[in-house]
Amino acid sequence: MNNDMLIRITRYYRALNRLRAIGLEKVFAHNLADAAGVSAAVVRKDFSLLEIHGQKRGGYEITDLIGRISSILGKGEPQNVIVVGCGRIGKALMHYSGFEPDGIRIVAGFDTDPIVYSDASHPVPVYPMSRLEEIVETLDTKVAIITVPEAAAADTAEKLMEAGVLGILNFSPITLKPRPAAPGEPCAVIHNINIALELEQIFYQLQFPEQRKQGQL
Amino acid sequence: MNNDMLIRITRYYRALNRLRAIGLEKVFAHNLADAAGVSAAVVRKDFSLLEIHGQKRGGYEITDLIGRISSILGKGEPQNVIVVGCGRIGKALMHYSGFEPDGIRIVAGFDTDPIVYSDASHPVPVYPMSRLEEIVETLDTKVAIITVPEAAAADTAEKLMEAGVLGILNFSPITLKPRPAAPGEPCAVIHNINIALELEQIFYQLQFPEQRKQGQL
Repeated sequence: MNNDMLIRITRYYRALNRLRAIGLEKVFAHNLADAAGVSAAVVRKDFSLLEIHGQKRGGYEITDLIGRISSILGKGEPQNVIVVGCGRIGKALMHYSGFEPDGIRIVAGFDTDPIVYSDASHPVPVYPMSRLEEIVETLDTKVAIITVPEAAAADTAEKLMEAGVLGILNFSPITLKPRPAAPGEPCAVIHNINIALELEQIFYQLQFPEQRKQGQL
Repeated sequence: MNNDMLIRITRYYRALNRLRAIGLEKVFAHNLADAAGVSAAVVRKDFSLLEIHGQKRGGYEITDLIGRISSILGKGEPQNVIVVGCGRIGKALMHYSGFEPDGIRIVAGFDTDPIVYSDASHPVPVYPMSRLEEIVETLDTKVAIITVPEAAAADTAEKLMEAGVLGILNFSPITLKPRPAAPGEPCAVIHNINIALELEQIFYQLQFPEQRKQGQL
């Protein structure tokens, strides 16, 4: 499965859970197409590649589909995430309720500032960076969100990987790359979300409309 | 210029501004390669496509490069952005100082909740949604960030486009698509940032390592 397909499958999965939550039992390719921003033909092709077949009279059983996709996506394990850097964006993510329906839980925060990690008002425990390795091991967490200032991002990523974190979602404007893995060691997965860069691309695409067709990222 | 190249060029541009800020005058392809997460060969190829040539003894003048790339990216105009939905994430973005070096300014916020838009502690003015059209016209803003709850996202995007906004960066978990433009009308540019989806992809790629090569988004 390539990355584009993975994104689509994850979108179908999200949409299916929402449709089930509002009481629907059956779904059609065009419903999922709308939710994922693709055509119904793409949905049908994806399902045929995954050997998921519809019913004779058209449509798919939602519960059945959720079960199938869930096993394809390897769901079931709790998806625990830590947030490193509890400034405004980090705090907003710790409070964000939109992760829960997707089975993602923010389980702890980390910060270097004693004022931040001594503050008891956070929705999850916040620890000093010095306890990173210990807590990551205790919570058996493999994925972290980096919301530290730009200048601290590379160092934070390094510390996370040393502590055993394998997946990083980086919100700092620095582009982080996984370091090459030693033989036999697992290689880290890093996704970078650069908000300023996204905005700049939008401005660019508005200024030069010929770029727009490629612009629906 | 395709989208991948645009992303790289924007990254070079950001790195160049930072290098100039710390007093450097000259830069080499491998410096920019590190900053953009690509190889030096890619940087050289991009520059050759853009007809930017290095000096005889190697390297590029930073100020010269900034000028060239800036005109390619169509910089110069102020890049004003509004934030719609002033919850935790919206507020964090209104306070975020990382946009300024890239010439991006959050100029106003919008919310439906009187408690939010009557609160005078925001770093920029926050208006009720009912004044969207008037303020967008007054400020001549073409780009908006959507940080409203999932259920309000599609409706918010519709209102923004009716008010004349052409570019949207959507943080809600709904995938928004630009509506087809009427003949002669400009088509909107929408980028979706789905944080839960990014995390799910990371978990998936960690679980199925054969996906990782394609995973460095």
